[in-house]
Amino acid sequence: MSPSQNLVLSVNAGSSSLKICLYRVRDKTDTNAEPNQLMITSSISNISAPPAKFSFKVLGGSTKDEETQSVHDHASAFTHFLECLNGEADIDSAKITHVCHRVVHGGDFTDPVGINDEAYEHIERLSDLAPLHNGASLAVIKTCLDQLPDAKSVAFFDTAFHRSIPPHISSYAIDQKIAKQRGLKKYGFHGLSYSFILRSVSRFLEKPPASLNLIILHLGSGASACCIQHGQSLDTSMGLTPLNGLPGATRSGTIDPSLIFHYTNKAGRMSHDEGSAVQLHVTQAEHILNTQAGWKALAGTTDFAAITARREEDAAARLAFDLFADRVLNYVGSYHLKLGGAVDALVLSGGIGERSKELRAFIGQRVECLGYAPVDERRNAAVDATEGIVVDVGVPGAAGHRMLVCRTDEQLEMARQCTLGSL
Amino acid sequence: MSPSQNLVLSVNAGSSSLKICLYRVRDKTDTNAEPNQLMITSSISNISAPPAKFSFKVLGGSTKDEETQSVHDHASAFTHFLECLNGEADIDSAKITHVCHRVVHGGDFTDPVGINDEAYEHIERLSDLAPLHNGASLAVIKTCLDQLPDAKSVAFFDTAFHRSIPPHISSYAIDQKIAKQRGLKKYGFHGLSYSFILRSVSRFLEKPPASLNLIILHLGSGASACCIQHGQSLDTSMGLTPLNGLPGATRSGTIDPSLIFHYTNKAGRMSHDEGSAVQLHVTQAEHILNTQAGWKALAGTTDFAAITARREEDAAARLAFDLFADRVLNYVGSYHLKLGGAVDALVLSGGIGERSKELRAFIGQRVECLGYAPVDERRNAAVDATEGIVVDVGVPGAAGHRMLVCRTDEQLEMARQCTLGSL
Repeated sequence: MSPSQNLVLSVNAGSSSLKICLYRVRDKTDTNAEPNQLMITSSISNISAPPAKFSFKVLGGSTKDEETQSVHDHASAFTHFLECLNGEADIDSAKITHVCHRVVHGGDFTDPVGINDEAYEHIERLSDLAPLHNGASLAVIKTCLDQLPDAKSVAFFDTAFHRSIPPHISSYAIDQKIAKQRGLKKYGFHGLSYSFILRSVSRFLEKPPASLNLIILHLGSGASACCIQHGQSLDTSMGLTPLNGLPGATRSGTIDPSLIFHYTNKAGRMSHDEGSAVQLHVTQAEHILNTQAGWKALAGTTDFAAITARREEDAAARLAFDLFADRVLNYVGSYHLKLGGAVDALVLSGGIGERSKELRAFIGQRVECLGYAPVDERRNAAVDATEGIVVDVGVPGAAGHRMLVCRTDEQLEMARQCTLGSL
Repeated sequence: MSPSQNLVLSVNAGSSSLKICLYRVRDKTDTNAEPNQLMITSSISNISAPPAKFSFKVLGGSTKDEETQSVHDHASAFTHFLECLNGEADIDSAKITHVCHRVVHGGDFTDPVGINDEAYEHIERLSDLAPLHNGASLAVIKTCLDQLPDAKSVAFFDTAFHRSIPPHISSYAIDQKIAKQRGLKKYGFHGLSYSFILRSVSRFLEKPPASLNLIILHLGSGASACCIQHGQSLDTSMGLTPLNGLPGATRSGTIDPSLIFHYTNKAGRMSHDEGSAVQLHVTQAEHILNTQAGWKALAGTTDFAAITARREEDAAARLAFDLFADRVLNYVGSYHLKLGGAVDALVLSGGIGERSKELRAFIGQRVECLGYAPVDERRNAAVDATEGIVVDVGVPGAAGHRMLVCRTDEQLEMARQCTLGSL
């Protein structure tokens, strides 16, 4: 490759995993094209339960899948990736000009920030609010500053997209002096995904983002809903932390605030979690509700496709499917009314939203009463085989609000904001 | 009065108050009339902060209002009432055949129960789940068994109406073995009120209860919403305890389940509440979220009318009003979709629902997009002066789902179920 070409790395750290994409920055000749071209995708999982699984794929080239003993935390995982970048792909990591880091909880940060010592400490302090969620990102950022000293590290916050939520929706009905002192309000998450989807749907519908009213469902192992009015977040289902709102693979979602004290009388004590690669300071309550609940607790698996497949003969799977669908529809109904019925599209995304034709069919059938175009059975079944980032699953030509599927891409969204912005 | 006439007493105990109504059982000649005729209403407040305030009103007769030093707990409050019954109203308490007690949390009781030792102990055990809510009722029941030994004491549970909620709606996404062992599910509350409203709206619309789909908002210092399909509760906003769902005068309503651990690091410790007349065993978290939150925390008052009046010039009052309206509309939107848009009426009740024309106007304007008849300004303003239990506030003759106001009456509902049932 030409030495003049800049490279951007997008890093997405989970509690026991790391996903990394490398992009080449395109020339600014075609303003309609994505400004970045994907070159390499890599993922490392089982970081906290060695041997870690490592995969490394060069687009249009080789693929490597291996188990490795040299990865035992997020720092060594990132180092292992850099070694492979040089060894397998023959890419000089000195050409990486920017590294984008997804940080789940950004507190009051409303924009991405270039990371210096001050910003790092600020994010570290924030992590008291989200110890389960920010810890891994911080570990990777530290390693990155050390190993790629010439690249600019930028933190992208999943909360930033929701800065537009007005106070009467983001506030809790608690003492506002304490709320302000301790930052206790609805922040909302999955913001990089919502930002990507808003832009993609805007292109698909050929309407400017600022004109769009959308109900977006990001349904994956972490699941949330977002109500977008005039291109801005008006409400979302997650709250102070990602725990609130919809249930997920291992998360309870909203529960009665009293429940945990009846679940365990050790709710307020600190948890000692062996399953995480990162040191955590969380209560047992937060640990249980984030990691031992959700459909894993209901149906014994974190795999929603498996739950869907056996829901006819297995009562626990049926419960998990129906409970999830019920909670999702609660948000759709709320947000439809919040938008005064003026909805451009209901958009499904995330691992489940993009892959579960059964859940889409179920939701589609239920929202017809609100004036949504019926789901087209053939289109809905063919989403996986359909090209494009956005797919319309409604009956072609039918009147009504549209139901769309969007293949969301948080890593690409970071790279794009990094390349187009003045970071 | 004739010695053959039976009397029924309905008792509604709050944490620091007691409301009592005495009814005469009517002859069964007119099957359309209420089976009970109200004779006396009495209320005792400030029980935990003496001097208590005592009021005693004989319908069509004398009224007594006094402060009294002889009341210092729920037992002495009930005794004081019985003395007044004899002294002021010249009624022999031996003529009382039934005493109805509202018990907030009934666990898995699906019907009212006559209280013997076994039932009493069962309710006492349940109260571990609802110590803030059942304690006062238990104190009154004990006194009543002692002082009116010939009357039959019957417990009516606010949870019973919601027995029809299906498991995928009443279950939380947590370990179901622990959930079943400890009774951790959505019970729902305000059931006596919803039962009264369902019956009253059925008469008003001249449709049988089993044919009705309703969205009912019981909005008072405790506030909840209920989705009724085919005359049965399908969903409700309160949960394991009355804390979940809508905010109230001093309750937070739904919050992020992590929030309380960031609000206080003593969340899990037991609370020592001086403000209650009843011994409680609750965590500080539950105490704070039940008694130091809600619009008292947001706007410094528990009086929603005062908040409404000053919301134009006072940002805190504005926040409390808008936040409450937002959360109420979230449930309306959810339940409208849950009913597939087939809604006979949206019904407002409770102190705020019955008296706040401003909130009704606001809600009415927002739900028009779902096909509700517009609120009639004159009718809405004249609700207080309009006769009848149910008032239609929609524009007369306008097409669309109806918006109704219902003057709910939990005491009368208990007396009615007691007289008509086979208790």
